[in-house]
Amino acid sequence: MAKQPILTPQADDFPRWYQDVVAKAEMAENGPAKGTMVIRPYGYAIWERMQAEEDLRIKEAGAENCAFPLFIPQSYLAREADHVEGFSHEFWTVTHGGGKELEEPLIVRPTSETVIGEYMGKWIQSYRDLPLLLNLWNNVCRYELRTRLFLRTSEFLWQEGHTAHATAADSNAYAERILRDVYTDFMVNVLAIPVVPGRKTAAERFPGAINTLACEAMMGDGKALQMGTSHDLGQNFAKVFDITYLSDQGETELCWTTSWGTSTRMVGGLIMAHGDDGGLVVPPVLAPIQVAVLLVRDEDGAGEVAAALTAELKAAGVKVRLDAQVATSFGRRATDWELKGVPVRIEVGPRDLAEGLVTIVRRDTGEKRTVAIGEVGHRVANLLPTIQADLLDRATQRRDERTVDATSVEEAIEGAKVGFARIPWDLLKDGGEARLAEDAITVRVLQTADGGLPAGEDAPDLIAYVARSY
Amino acid sequence: MAKQPILTPQADDFPRWYQDVVAKAEMAENGPAKGTMVIRPYGYAIWERMQAEEDLRIKEAGAENCAFPLFIPQSYLAREADHVEGFSHEFWTVTHGGGKELEEPLIVRPTSETVIGEYMGKWIQSYRDLPLLLNLWNNVCRYELRTRLFLRTSEFLWQEGHTAHATAADSNAYAERILRDVYTDFMVNVLAIPVVPGRKTAAERFPGAINTLACEAMMGDGKALQMGTSHDLGQNFAKVFDITYLSDQGETELCWTTSWGTSTRMVGGLIMAHGDDGGLVVPPVLAPIQVAVLLVRDEDGAGEVAAALTAELKAAGVKVRLDAQVATSFGRRATDWELKGVPVRIEVGPRDLAEGLVTIVRRDTGEKRTVAIGEVGHRVANLLPTIQADLLDRATQRRDERTVDATSVEEAIEGAKVGFARIPWDLLKDGGEARLAEDAITVRVLQTADGGLPAGEDAPDLIAYVARSY
Repeated sequence: MAKQPILTPQADDFPRWYQDVVAKAEMAENGPAKGTMVIRPYGYAIWERMQAEEDLRIKEAGAENCAFPLFIPQSYLAREADHVEGFSHEFWTVTHGGGKELEEPLIVRPTSETVIGEYMGKWIQSYRDLPLLLNLWNNVCRYELRTRLFLRTSEFLWQEGHTAHATAADSNAYAERILRDVYTDFMVNVLAIPVVPGRKTAAERFPGAINTLACEAMMGDGKALQMGTSHDLGQNFAKVFDITYLSDQGETELCWTTSWGTSTRMVGGLIMAHGDDGGLVVPPVLAPIQVAVLLVRDEDGAGEVAAALTAELKAAGVKVRLDAQVATSFGRRATDWELKGVPVRIEVGPRDLAEGLVTIVRRDTGEKRTVAIGEVGHRVANLLPTIQADLLDRATQRRDERTVDATSVEEAIEGAKVGFARIPWDLLKDGGEARLAEDAITVRVLQTADGGLPAGEDAPDLIAYVARSY
Repeated sequence: MAKQPILTPQADDFPRWYQDVVAKAEMAENGPAKGTMVIRPYGYAIWERMQAEEDLRIKEAGAENCAFPLFIPQSYLAREADHVEGFSHEFWTVTHGGGKELEEPLIVRPTSETVIGEYMGKWIQSYRDLPLLLNLWNNVCRYELRTRLFLRTSEFLWQEGHTAHATAADSNAYAERILRDVYTDFMVNVLAIPVVPGRKTAAERFPGAINTLACEAMMGDGKALQMGTSHDLGQNFAKVFDITYLSDQGETELCWTTSWGTSTRMVGGLIMAHGDDGGLVVPPVLAPIQVAVLLVRDEDGAGEVAAALTAELKAAGVKVRLDAQVATSFGRRATDWELKGVPVRIEVGPRDLAEGLVTIVRRDTGEKRTVAIGEVGHRVANLLPTIQADLLDRATQRRDERTVDATSVEEAIEGAKVGFARIPWDLLKDGGEARLAEDAITVRVLQTADGGLPAGEDAPDLIAYVARSY
């Protein structure tokens, strides 16, 4: 069915396409205060599914959810020197409460390392209290000059994990475990996004960390998006917040801490990793609505069949939505479900029904098939995992096709114009990072030659993934 | 087993007992900024269970979750006159972002009617868009001089529902539906707290509402706690935010809106409704841990039996936790699980085991029984619903015993010294509310003679529930 494009085509203007999808799929809008965001029900339903899937994995990794205050005294944030230097230009400051000026300004949390450090110091007494594994689901605020919905906003929703350990080996291993078992597993197997895990260079490290690990994903335009980070904070926060424990030898020892986070930014990543000129494409494992049953016209018993199919799929555990809004044109509704990226659409109309058939449409490929009514349950059960696997395959293929192996900085810059470049880290050490920066290219992560996590920047034979990024 | 009280007894000092429970059961602590709260993992696990159970019911009532910004321009809050008058003394004000003074101060949301009103106005076009049913799970901040953990804090977590309807009858019916099908159902059947639903008097109404409905619960000291409110906002917000729709007759009409909320305050209500001198008592349906399996000593295969029982209960769908921390004394651990109010404790020790027995202890009654190992699953399956029902019965009995029918204001004041008093509303209309206020007593809610929700304060034969309150 030919139709006018309702979105700017990706090839014409990718950022504009992104804005169009966010608006037309009713994902989010700008809030009234600069850089803030209203997340609409459909966007929020996707975020809730992300939360649910990550939360399972976080609990599996032994961390417990809790809550810390939104307001942090300015003096707390000033205690770790690198941390305050990294964040102070992003502070939102509360100066008045109940109409009166406060004695000490409060900072709206940009992240909670400092306040949690204070309480870890109180709660941890002996080695028996370790590891202490905490996670928060909350909102944080960072003043931003240039904002873009989901990708960079003055307030965002996220989870921030914070843990304390007895040894350097423990904190390092836990930071790696979160990157692997929580973030990478979730992104690959739920979001169907083949992320590149690795270590950040010193230039890209979290303020206050001794090591930042990250998952980087390639978007539809070849740019990188940092999807999640896991930081080994060493003893930097333990020192300033006096996080100590009594060892089994009776000695007072400093703890080693980590922090790690993923945010509503992942919703932006989802849009840009799988979306096409028809709108969003949501992987079935993530989708809050996996199947939309569209009643074409309520004639000749089509309404009853659509309702019965919906009930059948629901009973089989499929997340299904019946669209019987026949007062709105069928074409408009089909376009709307496409925009929202619902993986499978089932069209139930009197013409097909006369032959005992319905039409099943795959959102990712657009492929249409007519299927006997009795076959729908079986077909959907097969189709959902197929679409999930195909989305991951396609995203992996794109990432691999658009990743070049460069043997010089200039080659890497060329490659980063359309995707990622892999280049020996040794070639970048001597001013190479600065040269890349001139073209707005950064080292996204370092990996060992076999794709593992480097123990440090000076490990031999490291590979740098470089790219433009969001 | 005789032991020193680790909590101030309720009879000695109820507020002190409450503070002790919150601290010793590791529910929450004060945050560093005045009036803020750190919710520790066990307190947060209870809140997560409250969220899950309410969220089910909210979705059942058709509302969809979404997110609105934390920061609201001051001018928005000023637009509804009663609303700003009611809240302005509680504002927390952000004056600086990124180190620079803002052109317009931002208020940290005390509640979101104003910002949502603006967007409802944009989103609603025709009668087909109605009702618009939204809900937010978020944090709000209200400056408070005197705070108490969970009950009154400068920041709290809550859900706030916001809906728009075509007619006054619709908005009124929806506000009542939330009170009944979401709040009352949740509080009675999950929290096991027999709330009194009713209508607030004009003096106690939400700023900007035309009708405030509430659920009031009796705490262990006879005082009332407002556990949730549901407001019919009439057209007050629709007028100032221009929330209109095109009717099926083609006329532009003003919408009717509602808002409704419950918060972490319910955690305080839970503690005070069921707690005793041993600590918290959590109803099984709510409990994040329903059964604690305590290994007394790891001898003669007791460790294996405890682990096997835990696995068996888990497989049966029971939320069970194994406590095999035998390095800590058994008495200390038993006391800790009592403090945390876990409904059932199973003690597995070598002495009982020699006879094929374990000991099952009910937290609510303290009753202990030895049970054959093979009977544990069956016994627990029966015990959990029994405890749930008994908690509700006991709380209902206390509420009824401590509620007097008063025939004069002085009798009502006398009754409110130890509980609730029911008094004909007509007796309070002429200065009676002011007289009660002198003794710090308020009308908690009005009901019709048969316990229903009054259509207005002037309906005949209304009954007022009066009490001291938190």
